[in-house]
Amino acid sequence: MTGTLYGVGLGPGDPELLTLRAHRLISTARVISYPAPDTGPSFARAIAAPYFPDGVREIPIVIPMRESRFPAKEIYDRAAQEIAELLDTGTDVISLCEGDPFFYGSYMYVFERLSARYPTVIVPGVTSLTACAAALRRPLTGRTDVLTVIPATLSDAEIRARIEAAQSVAIMKVGRHVGRLRALLDDLGLTHRAGYVERASLPDERVMPLAALAAERAPYFSMILIYKGDEAWTLPPSSSF
Amino acid sequence: MTGTLYGVGLGPGDPELLTLRAHRLISTARVISYPAPDTGPSFARAIAAPYFPDGVREIPIVIPMRESRFPAKEIYDRAAQEIAELLDTGTDVISLCEGDPFFYGSYMYVFERLSARYPTVIVPGVTSLTACAAALRRPLTGRTDVLTVIPATLSDAEIRARIEAAQSVAIMKVGRHVGRLRALLDDLGLTHRAGYVERASLPDERVMPLAALAAERAPYFSMILIYKGDEAWTLPPSSSF
Repeated sequence: MTGTLYGVGLGPGDPELLTLRAHRLISTARVISYPAPDTGPSFARAIAAPYFPDGVREIPIVIPMRESRFPAKEIYDRAAQEIAELLDTGTDVISLCEGDPFFYGSYMYVFERLSARYPTVIVPGVTSLTACAAALRRPLTGRTDVLTVIPATLSDAEIRARIEAAQSVAIMKVGRHVGRLRALLDDLGLTHRAGYVERASLPDERVMPLAALAAERAPYFSMILIYKGDEAWTLPPSSSF
Repeated sequence: MTGTLYGVGLGPGDPELLTLRAHRLISTARVISYPAPDTGPSFARAIAAPYFPDGVREIPIVIPMRESRFPAKEIYDRAAQEIAELLDTGTDVISLCEGDPFFYGSYMYVFERLSARYPTVIVPGVTSLTACAAALRRPLTGRTDVLTVIPATLSDAEIRARIEAAQSVAIMKVGRHVGRLRALLDDLGLTHRAGYVERASLPDERVMPLAALAAERAPYFSMILIYKGDEAWTLPPSSSF
């Protein structure tokens, strides 16, 4: 009997946004794996740590935070090997992931190395997408709207075409692209329909209309939501954030 | 002091996929509102009922299940009035929603009637989108993929254009459109990249490659996921569902 590999979504950051299932699996785990940067603490570990049981074995997957090297193939190969050896002894392994494991999640690099050989269970989580809409207090998408999710790394032309073909647009991982994206949305006449959220659901969350954002640079965990549909769904006034 | 209106996402259907916050709010609630059909039980109530406290006041919002009448303006007006009267007395009201309140959710019809007058808090939930990907055991979207979510009610031409502009596509609320969508995906040469999920996370969940689906008609809570990106992310073989 081999163990089962659980890919567990942790939600956007607030530990109370874990699911009951994620909470049960983490609080009874024998082995927990999570991504970690090479400097500073692991965000995934920080979300789930309040629920770690005493004596749990931890397997941090330490990834250098330099975009060009991502994904770091050898590091995931080694981590998968370590996890596989535990699964071979019949031990279940809980692999943590910010947000949802299958929504732009790093868990996929673990999953694709092990899912053909071991039983796997995915526990979906709350994504940053709906957490950001909740923080903005404006519906994300409804009725017959088309919703498109775009990584900020795409070119202006690619982003422009996708904004034009949807009623609701989320631009993920805004980071250093924020100035370029603002210029693009100004040009499309959509800045007044755009909201900005960084670090959704965390104590240092920031939420505002995009027009109110002064920064030239945003953190990696930031998002722009644009809603072009139902006119009734305006952003709350700046003063209410 | 007025009460607070909580829009609480319940996740895709399994009561263990509620968040810890949703669980806390529901299990300590004095008043809980939820959408209900005019025949048969309320899906939202069924998800959350295991956690209802004794003596909680329930406000079902009974909506006739005929698509052409949706949204039923007068029914939501009346429900909003009943909720407003409770908020005026300082009582908090928990308004339940399948999935996430702001992701194609009926909670928006309550929210848009009351959010300008009362304090509101949105508790995001696990969407059917990532629950279906979890059920299929195939990543939904990653790296620099574009993800587009399309209601099945759009025309063939609209759906085709959006599939062509994304790496990952979810077609929601497949229902009676399933035959038409299969023909369209056959024509695009994408049927082998498409998975089908109905009633994700529920005891009668069904999951299969779209090619294995015999039905001419699918239930309302069904979804097709198409992944055109990374070739490594194939669907699991039929036999493993």
